[in-house]
Amino acid sequence: MPAWNLTYNTYKPQEEGLREALCTLGNGYFATRGASAQVSAGDIHYPGTYLAGGYNRLKTKIADRDIENEDLVNMPNWLCLKFRFTGGQWFSPENAAIRSYCRELDIQNGILTHIVVFEDEQGRRIRMEEQRIVHMGDRHTAAMQVSLTSENETGALEVESAIDGTVQNRGVKRYGELNSRHLEVLESESVQDRPLYLKVQTVQSELRVAMTARTRITRKGKALELAPKLMDDDGYVGKRYTVDIKKKETIVVEKVVLVHTSRDIAISECGLAARARIQRTPGFEPLLKTHKLAWKQLWRRSDITLTDRRKKRSDHHPEMVVRLHIFHLLQTTSKQTINLDVGVPARGWHGEAYRGHIFWDELYIYPFITLQHPEITRSLLLYRYRRLDTARAAARAAGYKGAMFPWQSGSSGREETQTVHLNPKSGRWIPDNSHFQKHVNAAIAFNIWKYFESTGDMQFMSEYGAEVLLEIARFWASISTFNKDFDRYEILKVMGPDEYHDAYPDADEPGLDNNAYTNVMATWVLTQALNVLEILPEDRIEELCETLHITESETDLWWDISRKMRIIFHDDNIISQFEHYDRLKELDWEKYREKYTNIQRMDRILEAEGDSPNNYKITKQADVLMLFYLFSAPELKTLFKQLNYPFEYETIPKNIDYYVHRTTYGSSLSWVVHSWVMARSDRKRSWKFFLKALQSDINDIQGGTTREGIHLGAMAGSVNILQEAYMGIKTRGNILWVNPELPEVLEKLEMQVRYRGSTLAFETTQEMCKITLLCSPENTFKFGFKENLYELKVGNTRKFHI
Amino acid sequence: MPAWNLTYNTYKPQEEGLREALCTLGNGYFATRGASAQVSAGDIHYPGTYLAGGYNRLKTKIADRDIENEDLVNMPNWLCLKFRFTGGQWFSPENAAIRSYCRELDIQNGILTHIVVFEDEQGRRIRMEEQRIVHMGDRHTAAMQVSLTSENETGALEVESAIDGTVQNRGVKRYGELNSRHLEVLESESVQDRPLYLKVQTVQSELRVAMTARTRITRKGKALELAPKLMDDDGYVGKRYTVDIKKKETIVVEKVVLVHTSRDIAISECGLAARARIQRTPGFEPLLKTHKLAWKQLWRRSDITLTDRRKKRSDHHPEMVVRLHIFHLLQTTSKQTINLDVGVPARGWHGEAYRGHIFWDELYIYPFITLQHPEITRSLLLYRYRRLDTARAAARAAGYKGAMFPWQSGSSGREETQTVHLNPKSGRWIPDNSHFQKHVNAAIAFNIWKYFESTGDMQFMSEYGAEVLLEIARFWASISTFNKDFDRYEILKVMGPDEYHDAYPDADEPGLDNNAYTNVMATWVLTQALNVLEILPEDRIEELCETLHITESETDLWWDISRKMRIIFHDDNIISQFEHYDRLKELDWEKYREKYTNIQRMDRILEAEGDSPNNYKITKQADVLMLFYLFSAPELKTLFKQLNYPFEYETIPKNIDYYVHRTTYGSSLSWVVHSWVMARSDRKRSWKFFLKALQSDINDIQGGTTREGIHLGAMAGSVNILQEAYMGIKTRGNILWVNPELPEVLEKLEMQVRYRGSTLAFETTQEMCKITLLCSPENTFKFGFKENLYELKVGNTRKFHI
Repeated sequence: MPAWNLTYNTYKPQEEGLREALCTLGNGYFATRGASAQVSAGDIHYPGTYLAGGYNRLKTKIADRDIENEDLVNMPNWLCLKFRFTGGQWFSPENAAIRSYCRELDIQNGILTHIVVFEDEQGRRIRMEEQRIVHMGDRHTAAMQVSLTSENETGALEVESAIDGTVQNRGVKRYGELNSRHLEVLESESVQDRPLYLKVQTVQSELRVAMTARTRITRKGKALELAPKLMDDDGYVGKRYTVDIKKKETIVVEKVVLVHTSRDIAISECGLAARARIQRTPGFEPLLKTHKLAWKQLWRRSDITLTDRRKKRSDHHPEMVVRLHIFHLLQTTSKQTINLDVGVPARGWHGEAYRGHIFWDELYIYPFITLQHPEITRSLLLYRYRRLDTARAAARAAGYKGAMFPWQSGSSGREETQTVHLNPKSGRWIPDNSHFQKHVNAAIAFNIWKYFESTGDMQFMSEYGAEVLLEIARFWASISTFNKDFDRYEILKVMGPDEYHDAYPDADEPGLDNNAYTNVMATWVLTQALNVLEILPEDRIEELCETLHITESETDLWWDISRKMRIIFHDDNIISQFEHYDRLKELDWEKYREKYTNIQRMDRILEAEGDSPNNYKITKQADVLMLFYLFSAPELKTLFKQLNYPFEYETIPKNIDYYVHRTTYGSSLSWVVHSWVMARSDRKRSWKFFLKALQSDINDIQGGTTREGIHLGAMAGSVNILQEAYMGIKTRGNILWVNPELPEVLEKLEMQVRYRGSTLAFETTQEMCKITLLCSPENTFKFGFKENLYELKVGNTRKFHI
Repeated sequence: MPAWNLTYNTYKPQEEGLREALCTLGNGYFATRGASAQVSAGDIHYPGTYLAGGYNRLKTKIADRDIENEDLVNMPNWLCLKFRFTGGQWFSPENAAIRSYCRELDIQNGILTHIVVFEDEQGRRIRMEEQRIVHMGDRHTAAMQVSLTSENETGALEVESAIDGTVQNRGVKRYGELNSRHLEVLESESVQDRPLYLKVQTVQSELRVAMTARTRITRKGKALELAPKLMDDDGYVGKRYTVDIKKKETIVVEKVVLVHTSRDIAISECGLAARARIQRTPGFEPLLKTHKLAWKQLWRRSDITLTDRRKKRSDHHPEMVVRLHIFHLLQTTSKQTINLDVGVPARGWHGEAYRGHIFWDELYIYPFITLQHPEITRSLLLYRYRRLDTARAAARAAGYKGAMFPWQSGSSGREETQTVHLNPKSGRWIPDNSHFQKHVNAAIAFNIWKYFESTGDMQFMSEYGAEVLLEIARFWASISTFNKDFDRYEILKVMGPDEYHDAYPDADEPGLDNNAYTNVMATWVLTQALNVLEILPEDRIEELCETLHITESETDLWWDISRKMRIIFHDDNIISQFEHYDRLKELDWEKYREKYTNIQRMDRILEAEGDSPNNYKITKQADVLMLFYLFSAPELKTLFKQLNYPFEYETIPKNIDYYVHRTTYGSSLSWVVHSWVMARSDRKRSWKFFLKALQSDINDIQGGTTREGIHLGAMAGSVNILQEAYMGIKTRGNILWVNPELPEVLEKLEMQVRYRGSTLAFETTQEMCKITLLCSPENTFKFGFKENLYELKVGNTRKFHI
């Protein structure tokens, strides 16, 4: 029995935010949340859809105006559909009793279903069966179908269908003081024989959104001719129909919605486009058919099946959760956003947390996406290329060369990181130095390189990728300083991924020296930059060097730094997270575990106690261990050898052991990285961490943050464990390497990947790995299994004993 | 002495439109015209820049509103810079005498220079030296530098620098009755210490354009601190400076301009972006340096040198004109428009004729662009992909299947062709049936295939190209009807490229049957569609067939049509332009040549006489002969054999002779095609036609139409003659074929091409052809010379005797 449906059978208002985040439907362009707890004014109020635009607590003075970028704004709510018996109350969780309740997210087909039996004060019962889709094959279209059955009453039923432009951004409580109303109404229309129409504009970014909606009510398949009451009130356009309904009778309401924005291509004006397009858009059933086909095709490429020894399957069965994660990945980094100027938001498109900003989560997200839908990664990488000029300006402004991308990036590419954040434990606003995480620049370069390695897309590398990579290399060279005492280069005053450490104990200024992760990544970037200048077509190299003024003395410097970057060790070959990490105090873990049930956010606990995590050897999330996540042992060995540092086989388990013991799992990414790095050395524990990573959203183990948006990096990371760690699929140079090793509990793991135009199917058990070449542009495909190279012909399967 | 500078030394108001078109500077995104004859209100008024947006004579009713798409709208004029002695007249051609005049377009560096000595009524003389650039490395930036020298006066000079948002579309006289004012002002600012700022919106398409300008005045390199008079009047923002100037002294005015539109990516709001970006934009000199570098790199790839036996070089020397044509090609299909949603407008971005619409000219333009800058073609082809859905709707509305792209395409992808046009000779408005030219759909499919053939870009073909090609094939299949009498398929009631024929003599309805060009192209498209379904990755084929519902019975039909399409012949193996062409009357050419000096536009002449070109065997432009232009003899032989029609070697010269005699050259494309098809059979005449094609804009031989915009297709076509006909470079299958043959008058021809990642240099004389492999992703490169295959190693040259 395949695990495809996430089902909730009880209505629990307090859990609505979580459900909503998990049951979100969207196609990236046109995301929409599920039914929400944010009921208002007696309506079944479904908060609307989102779009990339922007707002931010930070204010910037440009030309004497205060600017708040609107990076994530709620779209007008297209889901408004309510009903009541004339004169009665609207049937909604607030006004009516819920006699039965079922919500189901059909992950396979991208359909959200609600089946609810409401009862009003007069005891009249309506059974509602609602299906919703946001079309996966057409970015502009969404639709819903609601069948309403009167269980015990004959009477006049009022059905109101509307578009609501009065929506606000209210999804994250602690942003309550920010502007929440971001839409102003430009045009609206509710007339008899035409679709509902609303055109709004975001307040700051002046993005226009036009929506049209067509409502159709049928009884026994026959469309009813009804003259609705027309509503057009300050951003809320609707039509209220009155339908006679008999006891046990069913009417079906169908609503088809079209959206266009002023950033859309191939249109003249967005209002016109939305009005013209709805005329040629079919009804719910045909839309459902093409929507399901689009999802079928996505799953044919992207499904992962895992069989474990447990027989019983529940909603929280690993396979089910993995699919939920893939579902969200395919929605957020969607084929429907290709060629739109979007990046990968940390919390998907349907959560307001971080206001839609782009961090470094792509590092976790691309490995899976690139080997399934490389054209999506290509399009998303361009998000960075387009902001290269802003990153250059940021580097110059900070006194560096090249390009310095921000820690939090929005629509304009400037640094959007907040400068203070709230500790809810202490109620205090704390300076936020997370923009010292310059390592995001290494992640961007790494992503470009990995995309190139997986696709061989020289056109992309040549026209876009190389320029970004070279400018980032230049940044790393310029932030590196030479220390004569050691004959080594250093990177001072930055932050690693571990956000618990932003300064030395009692230091006046933020920043840490020689963060190992940063220094190794900078070394890697400089090495690859020199490599890129070897492999590009010669004429393109000439152009790039001319345009960017790259001289031999500069590449000599890159070479020098990439051989002499400083890495610091302490104890017995422990890579120091940063310089003087060894001087920090050990935390009394027992004491805190006893005192607080949950010590994931030790930063808040310590700050509230007047202490600081800066004083302790504790880690919010993988920092040194990220190196083992990103690089294979041979790759790391090469890098360390290049730097003339020792690297033994034991270095890895030793460091894993050291840092795993000192991690509080304050980030959803820790479970992922720890599961990954232990996949070989401690399979049982790796599986335990993997299961924990799977829980992070479905059980909301980050303390209620799922309702503010899913944790896309952690979702992708968990999928990545299956692909890269357990199936052992890694690209390196011009070869796809496979080295599977399943946790004991896993019986079988199956998946497909696309690599440089070839499609391969993998099936691995505890004893055997079968690899099939499904199709390929060449007749044969060369790949690596463990240490050796093999060839496969199209249609053939090769089996390996493990 | 290289021919790089187009120079005009006399000021002739009546020729200004022509000069303006030829001296246009632009980078595709941000085109701008040269100084114009449209002086107004005593200013030196330089009409501004253009952008894709849209307007049209046709009105469409959508949701009860009349819609005129604004497809080409003047940008605010950023060039406004005027000067006078206080109290005197502005120095301008209208107000002041011109004592000396020189305008020079530096094609190599993309710089337009004016050197003018003005004299006002008081006899005061100012020498103006102006240089202008529209930056080729940064789509948002333009700049000018004007040095003003007082020749004989000491006094106070007023210099006014402005942005003018009151510009209108007035470039084409016969559009005078259309809306000409397309900009409404949204925001404006002229204050002391900040750049000028203007934000406007196009009236219908609601595209916003924000412009900022910084003006700096220096004397002897020192910036002057001046308090200008501030102007902000209904869309005109300016600053008027007063500068003391001594006799023989020079002051330099520098103006740097930034533009952003609401369609720009990587911005929040366009006004903010333009204001922020100008702060980090350097001055004229550094901009000039990077601008020149960008052009240097373009020319390094794209220059063609030709040495002919004539020693004297003038502005109209072929090499010079070829460079002018390449210059316009590189400006219009610019690297700066990559990833913008633009196509290739027939008249460039700086002429208002055809209102920016996209026809089939791409067919002439891509061969050169694709072998120089394939990434530009890739981006431009997406213009069509994005409008696929609209083309599908158009096919459905006309009762066909698949996708039917319009003859004239604008921003929204709907048919923009006018339904009537004016015959200036008779003053009558004539029904315009040119939208019956369904053959544009064959051109689009052809372009996709050729791009794929030249680049091997399977990702593009797989994700975008194939879908368009398949849907076009489906359209051709559905417009084909089976004629039992002949056991053949026919295409009825269409128009071929020859616009003189839109109906049979005295027919009530427009349309011609079995246009040979259309039928052969449809056959070719169906053949390639079947081919595409062979070469794509199998899983992608499955997806496409599912999504588009392509069944075996449909592909069987395609196969059948591609074997049984009807072609009609008359006389001795003459391919009939269309069915019953042979029944038309022969024109009395002598009579008309005597009566009218210029018979290029026989359609207008005949219509004015109450006659019609439909009655005669006359052709405006190549129709049947297009087949010889697009396909090599072996390719045509294969196609005709597939259709079971005879095709002898003599078929080609016979048909050429037949149709060349019946052509009036009413389109600038005729010279191109005729030169091309005669390149082998009649080299002398081919060269004559080539020279004629070169003249079409520089001498405005289309009767004053150059001032309404250059003829980009003809420009590209002339370059293409050098590449494809004389150098004989053609892609076919997986091979680049070379087969040079120079006209007798040509001593040497040199050029480079990029083919599937390799760069090759070609040098051909009458006796010898040298091919050098400059760089390549592989070690060796395989190519065809005449009938044989050869291999080259990187860095090596191979010589062939001809």
